[in-house]
Amino acid sequence: MPSISERINGVQTPIIPEVADLIDENPGTISLGQGVVHYSPPKEIVEGIRAFSDSAMHHYQAVEGIAMLREKIAEKTIAENNINPECYEIVVTAGSNMGFLNAILAVCDPGDEVILLSPWYFNHEMAIRIANCTPVSVATDSSFKPDIVAISAAITPRTRAVVTVSPNNPTGAVYSKTTISTINQLCLENNLYHISDEAYEYFCYDGAAHYSPASIDTAENHTISLFSTSKSYALANWRIGYMMIPKHLFKPIRKIQDTNLICPPVISQFVALECLKSGRNYCLQNQKGIESSRTHLKAGLKTLSDVTFPKLEGAFYVLVQLPAVEMSDMEIVRFLIEQHGVAVIPGVAFGIRDRKCIRVSYGALEPSIATTGINRLVAGIRCLLG
Amino acid sequence: MPSISERINGVQTPIIPEVADLIDENPGTISLGQGVVHYSPPKEIVEGIRAFSDSAMHHYQAVEGIAMLREKIAEKTIAENNINPECYEIVVTAGSNMGFLNAILAVCDPGDEVILLSPWYFNHEMAIRIANCTPVSVATDSSFKPDIVAISAAITPRTRAVVTVSPNNPTGAVYSKTTISTINQLCLENNLYHISDEAYEYFCYDGAAHYSPASIDTAENHTISLFSTSKSYALANWRIGYMMIPKHLFKPIRKIQDTNLICPPVISQFVALECLKSGRNYCLQNQKGIESSRTHLKAGLKTLSDVTFPKLEGAFYVLVQLPAVEMSDMEIVRFLIEQHGVAVIPGVAFGIRDRKCIRVSYGALEPSIATTGINRLVAGIRCLLG
Repeated sequence: MPSISERINGVQTPIIPEVADLIDENPGTISLGQGVVHYSPPKEIVEGIRAFSDSAMHHYQAVEGIAMLREKIAEKTIAENNINPECYEIVVTAGSNMGFLNAILAVCDPGDEVILLSPWYFNHEMAIRIANCTPVSVATDSSFKPDIVAISAAITPRTRAVVTVSPNNPTGAVYSKTTISTINQLCLENNLYHISDEAYEYFCYDGAAHYSPASIDTAENHTISLFSTSKSYALANWRIGYMMIPKHLFKPIRKIQDTNLICPPVISQFVALECLKSGRNYCLQNQKGIESSRTHLKAGLKTLSDVTFPKLEGAFYVLVQLPAVEMSDMEIVRFLIEQHGVAVIPGVAFGIRDRKCIRVSYGALEPSIATTGINRLVAGIRCLLG
Repeated sequence: MPSISERINGVQTPIIPEVADLIDENPGTISLGQGVVHYSPPKEIVEGIRAFSDSAMHHYQAVEGIAMLREKIAEKTIAENNINPECYEIVVTAGSNMGFLNAILAVCDPGDEVILLSPWYFNHEMAIRIANCTPVSVATDSSFKPDIVAISAAITPRTRAVVTVSPNNPTGAVYSKTTISTINQLCLENNLYHISDEAYEYFCYDGAAHYSPASIDTAENHTISLFSTSKSYALANWRIGYMMIPKHLFKPIRKIQDTNLICPPVISQFVALECLKSGRNYCLQNQKGIESSRTHLKAGLKTLSDVTFPKLEGAFYVLVQLPAVEMSDMEIVRFLIEQHGVAVIPGVAFGIRDRKCIRVSYGALEPSIATTGINRLVAGIRCLLG
C-alpha cells in the first residue's frame, strides 16, 4: 500500500486523544488533563443562534469572517489590549490553533526555523513540523520566564519567527510587559515575526498582568497576535478564534484559509459576537471556581517535598517537576490514571526530556470534583515517590 | 518588514472573494459565480440545534468527529455508495476542502507530484502548492472526461496521488463507473493514492450516475473519498464534510486535524446528523429548481454560435468555451459584471490558459432570478463576440 508522508511521520501523536483513551479505559478517572474551563458558555449564545437563524445566511461568507464580528473584535482590542486595529487586519479562524498554522504557512518555507520557548505548547511544535519547518527550542529560566540572551543566541539566518504564549500553556507563567517588549524589539531588529498566542489573556492571578505586544508602536509590521473564545467564553467546540496580522499578510492568509476552511462556521461567529458583546466579566466571574481549585492545588503540592512548581500566576495550568524516577513520562501518567484515578498530561508532550514533569490543568472541573482530583493527584505523587 | 513565504507567493489569489469584490462594486449584479445551492437547509437543523443545546457538550470532542455522526455516515455510505465502512476510517472535517488538505499533508512530502485532471478545482491546486508539492495537470478529452493514457503517461517516481472530482467542478462532467474503476486500478498498480472528491454526488442528470471508487474490492488501502454536506443539504457555512480513508491514514490525519482544528464545530455536527437522518430526498426534491435553470441555460447557450459547452450532466456547473477574443479572462468577467450585470468565474482560475472559458454556476439562484441571470449572460456573450 502507498505510504504516509515523512513530514507526518515526524509529528508527535496528539497527546490529548491518547490520554483520553486511557481515561475511557479507566472509568471514574478525574481528568486534570485537557485545557478547558469548567463553566458553560454564557446564556447569550441563545441570542447568537437566534440572530443566525434569522439572518438567512445559508451561503458561504467572507473568508476572513463576517463584518459584524470583525468590527466587534476591533472594539475589543482597543478597549482591552490597547491595540490599534487600524494598524492590523483581523481574520476570524476556526480556533487559534488554525490561526497559528495559518501564520506558519504564510511566513515560513520548508527548512525555515521558528523559535519556541521550551516547554512549548505541543500543537505549535506539530504545526511547524507539518509545514516542514524546524522548531528550535530555547529553554526558559527556572521560573519558566523567557531567557532573552538564549533567544538572541538561537537566531540564525533561517529563523523566521519567535513564538510567545503568555499566559503560558503549559507552565502557567505570565510574561511581564518588559519581557514581551524586549522580545518584540529583538524580532524587529532581526527582521523576524513575533507570534504572540494570547488565548489565556483573561486568566491572570496574584497581580500578574497580561500584555499584548501588538500594542507597541513599532509592532505593526511584524507582530501576529492570536486570540481565542474557547477558554474565555467556554466556546471550545464552537471553534472561533481570531488573529490580528500585519496588513501585508492579509492576502496570503486569505489564500490559506480559503483553501483550508473557506470560512469560519457562521453560526459560531454569531454566537461569538454575542459573547463578545456580553464582555469579559462573564469569564472573570466564573474564575472564582478556578480560584478555589488553584488554592487547593497549591496547598496540596506544597505538602510534597522534592516536588517543585512555579507560581500559579496565569492560564489554568501548572507544570510540576518530579524528582528522577525510574519511569517514563507516559508510565507516570498511566500509573496516576490506573492506580489513583486522576489524569494529567506528560511533560514529554511539551518537549521536556531532561526532567520528569506533568502538566496539571485545574480549570476544567467544578471546584468540588477538582478538589477530589487534586487530592488523588497529591496522594498519587506521594505514592510514586514513596 | 519580514516577508511572506515563497510557498504562498506561488499560490493563486482565491477567485471567489475577488469576483465577490467586483459584484459588491456593481450593485444589482446576478451571480452565476459561487458554487452553492439556491435552497435553504432542511427544517431538521432546528432539531440538531436543540439536540446540541441539550447535550451539554461544551468541551472539545473527538478530533475525528462525534461517534453518532460517524455511525450515521457509515450507514449512509453502505446504503448509498456501496462502500463497506469497515474497510475505512471516517473522519469528519470542517468541509471537504479541509479533507483534501488533510489528505495531501498526510501522503505528500515537498516536491512530490499530484495529478489533477485539467480543468481542475482551484482549491485542490492551491492546497497542493501550500503543501510545497507540484500539481501536475493532465488534460481531459473534448468532453472533459479523463484521458487514461495521458494520466498513465504523467506518472513519475515522484507521483503520490491522482485526484478525480465526479460530478465535476468546474465542467459538470460525470465520470462513468468504468472510467473511475480504471483510474482506481491504475493507482493500485502504481502504488498511488486515488483521491476521489464526491461533494456533488447527488447532482446527476439525464441518466448520468455517480460512482464511488471506494466501493471497489481492491480499493481499501489506497482510496481516499471526500464528501460534503455543503451542497446536498445547503449547509455551506456550517462547515461539515467527511472523509473515508484507508485505516493506516487514521493516525496521520488525526495529527493534522488536531493541530489545525482540534475538532469539527460540534453544533454543526449535530445539525449534519439530523440532515443525514432526513436523507437525500430533501436534496433531490430541491433539484427541481436547479433543473429548470439547467434547461434554460442549455437553451440559451445553444443560441450562441461559436460557443461550445459539454453536456450538463452533473454538479450545477457548466464550463463554456468562448472563441478567441482580445481580452483576458478577468477582463471578460469584468465586462460581464459591469456591462451586463452577471457574474461568472474565469477559466484561468481552473488552470485553463490555452482557451477562453468561463464557469457558469446555475444552482445558486431561485429559478426566476437564475432565468434573468442566464438571459443577461447570453446577451453579454453575444455582445462580447460582436
